[in-house]
Amino acid sequence: MITRDDIEKAHGKIKPFIHHTPVLTNSSINEMAGAELYFKCENFQKIGAFKIRGGMNASLSLTPEQLAKGLATHSSGNHAQAIAFAAKTLGTKAYIVMPSNSPSVKVNAVNGYGAEVIFCEPNQAARETALQKVVDETGAEFIHPYDDDRVITGQATCVKELIATVPGLDIIFTPVGGGGLLSGTALGVHYFHPTAKVFAGEPEGAADAILSFRSGRVEKAPYVNTIADGLLTTLSERTLLIIRNHVTDIFLVSEEEIKAALRLVYERMKIVVEPSCVVPLAAMLKNKEQFKGKKIGIILTGGNVDLKKFAEWFKD
Amino acid sequence: MITRDDIEKAHGKIKPFIHHTPVLTNSSINEMAGAELYFKCENFQKIGAFKIRGGMNASLSLTPEQLAKGLATHSSGNHAQAIAFAAKTLGTKAYIVMPSNSPSVKVNAVNGYGAEVIFCEPNQAARETALQKVVDETGAEFIHPYDDDRVITGQATCVKELIATVPGLDIIFTPVGGGGLLSGTALGVHYFHPTAKVFAGEPEGAADAILSFRSGRVEKAPYVNTIADGLLTTLSERTLLIIRNHVTDIFLVSEEEIKAALRLVYERMKIVVEPSCVVPLAAMLKNKEQFKGKKIGIILTGGNVDLKKFAEWFKD
Repeated sequence: MITRDDIEKAHGKIKPFIHHTPVLTNSSINEMAGAELYFKCENFQKIGAFKIRGGMNASLSLTPEQLAKGLATHSSGNHAQAIAFAAKTLGTKAYIVMPSNSPSVKVNAVNGYGAEVIFCEPNQAARETALQKVVDETGAEFIHPYDDDRVITGQATCVKELIATVPGLDIIFTPVGGGGLLSGTALGVHYFHPTAKVFAGEPEGAADAILSFRSGRVEKAPYVNTIADGLLTTLSERTLLIIRNHVTDIFLVSEEEIKAALRLVYERMKIVVEPSCVVPLAAMLKNKEQFKGKKIGIILTGGNVDLKKFAEWFKD
Repeated sequence: MITRDDIEKAHGKIKPFIHHTPVLTNSSINEMAGAELYFKCENFQKIGAFKIRGGMNASLSLTPEQLAKGLATHSSGNHAQAIAFAAKTLGTKAYIVMPSNSPSVKVNAVNGYGAEVIFCEPNQAARETALQKVVDETGAEFIHPYDDDRVITGQATCVKELIATVPGLDIIFTPVGGGGLLSGTALGVHYFHPTAKVFAGEPEGAADAILSFRSGRVEKAPYVNTIADGLLTTLSERTLLIIRNHVTDIFLVSEEEIKAALRLVYERMKIVVEPSCVVPLAAMLKNKEQFKGKKIGIILTGGNVDLKKFAEWFKD
């Protein structure tokens, strides 16, 4: 069980290595929403995403002997960069298992931090085999992208900062993929600002969390098709349990709603964010009657985009 | 002659109507540049560009009788939005002369502030005729985009803020189009931080200012072809005189250099800026030996982009 003290200690440990990201507001989006929105900008975070919080906390939890053997994970997204950056910063090696069809922009980002990339066939079994092999050969510590208390505790530090910066929030909104950020956020709110409610947004085209949230079992998405490519992962038993205990509700949004929210953030806020980021904003705007007049914190999770994708997102 | 006191008074007058924009830094761009760069983010300014400073200062210089008759200008860019916003904020009318081939996104932005758009043929003579007609009919005050001391004085408040936020700058860099921002910046540096030198960047495909700067006469660009569409205008006698007196040098950059700098700002800083914005950064990077180890302020002028253009800018 992750405690209040765990989150406070994690924050103290990772602070020297991360940015205290700013909270932005935008009057025209507020007008549109009929609410006061506070955006916690983790797109400005080190490595361009909140994932460094969990990755760094897990890495700093190791003994010097463990750390010396290196860090390992499987991810083609921001968690891979987080582990690569943590390893570089702490002077050890990182082994990142990535599917052989990963976009070169993502492989380059990880290579740029000096990590070793191990390619595998693009399926779950190959990924786990490749990871196990690396761990067996090197003794490196496996840090799962979200099914890990050290990672969840690190992610919880983000809402802790938001709560300290903006007193009196009624609602906190995050996206949900594997549930590391959502469960960490839910625990952070539980300990540091328990009067607020926590909601999540999820793409219709990756709708596993809402099903799991309703049924109480880890479910798969009925189909997978979304530009919010940071949210393709599935909850674990660990994240589901925390989410069921501490999250009020999860909303689905369509691809069109995601694109409209993305456009809003680019045009009005003038910041670069990933599509996964705007899923909570899209969910809030879709259900705005429910949130009228509320003071709402939204975590903008990251800004690592392949600029070539702009052509597809903003073609109209 | 614009005085130190003029700039201070202008700043006091416009402050309630504008944002005090943040200054951002980026460690990987600093590493690349071999210098310390401080970006004054006017893309986060009201109307998404610094132009509100000059537009608002000019509007606030009017008597109540003058103001009641309305504001007029010709522009299809950020100055049009600045005048439209100033009129709306101060409770008067704005008349904006725009070429009939203006992109609808720009027309809509001006309409969105409640201004009246008067279309004209896309040439200089038609524009001036249409403007004169509006002024004659309505008695509205013409506020030129840059050939106006009230506008230049307003633009000077931007570097005044930058100097106050970041002490000890060695260099200040801006783009140059008609020279309103550059001449205002040069005067601001002259009065508030005279040990710093002022440089400007200009696109090769709109290279009038560098020729005028060298010859001492207002020159035309040899050819016009650039994605930096905020820099197509030509210096006036007024702005040239100030620039010749107070600017150290102007550098040209190619379209490829502009696109590379644009990509850098999107990918590393995670902010949305116009191509015109990054011309100083491109110029600094191109001449980085000259600026090694210096503390450099760069004004990022605006973030009003048509998202459809991303496909063209970031296609590779």
